[in-house]
Amino acid sequence: MSEPVPLVEVTRGPFVESRHFGHAVVARAGGEIVNAWGDPAKIVLPRSSAKMIQALPLLESGAGAGLSQERLALACASHSGEQRHVDKVSTWLHELGLDEHALCCGPQASRDDALRDDMIRRGVEPSRVHNNCSGKHAGFLMLAKHLGASLDYVDPENPVQKAVKSAFEEVCGERSPGFGIDGCSAPNFAASLAGIARAMAAFATAGTGGGARETAMVSLREAMMAHPELVSGKGRACAALMSAAKGQAAVKTGAEGLFVAILPGLGFGVAIKIEDGATRASEAAMAALLIRLGVVEAEDPRVAAFLAPRIENWDGLHVGDVRACRTLFD
Amino acid sequence: MSEPVPLVEVTRGPFVESRHFGHAVVARAGGEIVNAWGDPAKIVLPRSSAKMIQALPLLESGAGAGLSQERLALACASHSGEQRHVDKVSTWLHELGLDEHALCCGPQASRDDALRDDMIRRGVEPSRVHNNCSGKHAGFLMLAKHLGASLDYVDPENPVQKAVKSAFEEVCGERSPGFGIDGCSAPNFAASLAGIARAMAAFATAGTGGGARETAMVSLREAMMAHPELVSGKGRACAALMSAAKGQAAVKTGAEGLFVAILPGLGFGVAIKIEDGATRASEAAMAALLIRLGVVEAEDPRVAAFLAPRIENWDGLHVGDVRACRTLFD
Repeated sequence: MSEPVPLVEVTRGPFVESRHFGHAVVARAGGEIVNAWGDPAKIVLPRSSAKMIQALPLLESGAGAGLSQERLALACASHSGEQRHVDKVSTWLHELGLDEHALCCGPQASRDDALRDDMIRRGVEPSRVHNNCSGKHAGFLMLAKHLGASLDYVDPENPVQKAVKSAFEEVCGERSPGFGIDGCSAPNFAASLAGIARAMAAFATAGTGGGARETAMVSLREAMMAHPELVSGKGRACAALMSAAKGQAAVKTGAEGLFVAILPGLGFGVAIKIEDGATRASEAAMAALLIRLGVVEAEDPRVAAFLAPRIENWDGLHVGDVRACRTLFD
Repeated sequence: MSEPVPLVEVTRGPFVESRHFGHAVVARAGGEIVNAWGDPAKIVLPRSSAKMIQALPLLESGAGAGLSQERLALACASHSGEQRHVDKVSTWLHELGLDEHALCCGPQASRDDALRDDMIRRGVEPSRVHNNCSGKHAGFLMLAKHLGASLDYVDPENPVQKAVKSAFEEVCGERSPGFGIDGCSAPNFAASLAGIARAMAAFATAGTGGGARETAMVSLREAMMAHPELVSGKGRACAALMSAAKGQAAVKTGAEGLFVAILPGLGFGVAIKIEDGATRASEAAMAALLIRLGVVEAEDPRVAAFLAPRIENWDGLHVGDVRACRTLFD
């Protein structure tokens, strides 16, 4: 087992103040590893970076037939809980004959500062629809109803989660060694980082003539790239990097330092795990790998904002920088 | 140079999801290293863990003669911006003939959720007095006035910062290789982690018969232990660990994974740097070392809350734990 390697540095004045170690894999759909840093066999919990995989049964079952691209993007989203996200998920739930109380995720404050502060001023508590995973859960509910399953859809024994596990193991090309419970209460299945990268490559190479799974993969991939701000939110990494990639990459962050990319033009999948779980590092590392692979440009301000974000102090002074290590480019 | 070693793990279900690598040193006042993990020679920016050192010139110069223990605790504080912190610093500034506009730190929202939300409701912006460093800055201003220096006291060439640098190098027993600009705009001088630990041991062994420096060290150490919630805030690590240690430890956190301890009974100093800068890890590692050194008990809930905090998800489910690695106890 290889140890994690330095992937991202944080400077302050003339010093490297902190360093983030991690693992990264670029793979082809057959599982062939194109590039690797650290330990490709490392077992990881993909957290929200697995949302595209978790959405596969929704489409493969036929439950989600005819779903709009916006709703498919929301099913794959870790959204910011902006008003548009809340409204679209609420409408989806309403059409299912349900409301926020059917969601098994807990409530979460909006990441939209203006909305959050406005809710505080109005004395309105955050709801479950504001939870960044509410779109995924709307998809789970739609699938549960279609399958005639219990609406306790986060139970690992529920047919929804059994279908998710089955799809997950198939696209990763390996048996999952188990699961943890995610921030939103759904089971989150583990796999090797190389398995996750291979799954993303399968999304990248899928074509519409390839059967239900490939068709579902194409639909989800295209929906994400068509609605980057529904997958995340204004100014956030997934939205910025997908906009900059102009159809060359569908990317998805996950808690605890995960970040994955589907690269349709190259037929590659990418998976990154920062050992310590830091988002500032997973974002910088993903920006670096997308530059390395030629799908975005370092000079694009949407990329630079995550490749090398300035660290500003409470008085707005530029006191340091986050920067990807050279090893990600070499 | 030794690489950082795993100090803290984060679990989720049956998996170690993330790991934090770092460095730690326990030292005596003469510089002798009692225990070390990782690289004791690692150069670090101590950030707010240096506040006791930064407060030395305030007392040694005579500027702070007669200051209350509360104000000495605030001079060493990274406080939460609770109303009591804000009120006490405001009164101090007023007695200096100054107000918040004299502070060179930027504004920062209160960490007290109820106060922060109340300010949002009332449409009141956070001020510079709410900044966690406002007590340190009040001390800098008091020293600047005493020295007849410019009130631009964060300029590295200002007599205040020259005095800080001189004291810092003397107590660390080494020349500082430079500085970075801190979150509060003051210069933050670098040293080896072993140097920082040695400085903390000097605070630990200082006696009142030992001249101006030792007297200042005793005053600051005792003030911190007498007012743990003024040094940090309700429910936070420094306050909890100092309360639990019952006069056996003065501890101080710093941004980017720093944590130091002064252990008067043992005559030891402790310094921890988490390589990736994570606070959850520096807190767990400090709790572990205080247990190892016999100054707190693992069963004390004030210690357990930082040694092994539960990770709860948005729905309040217990989904994982932070835990110190065995190496910190062996």
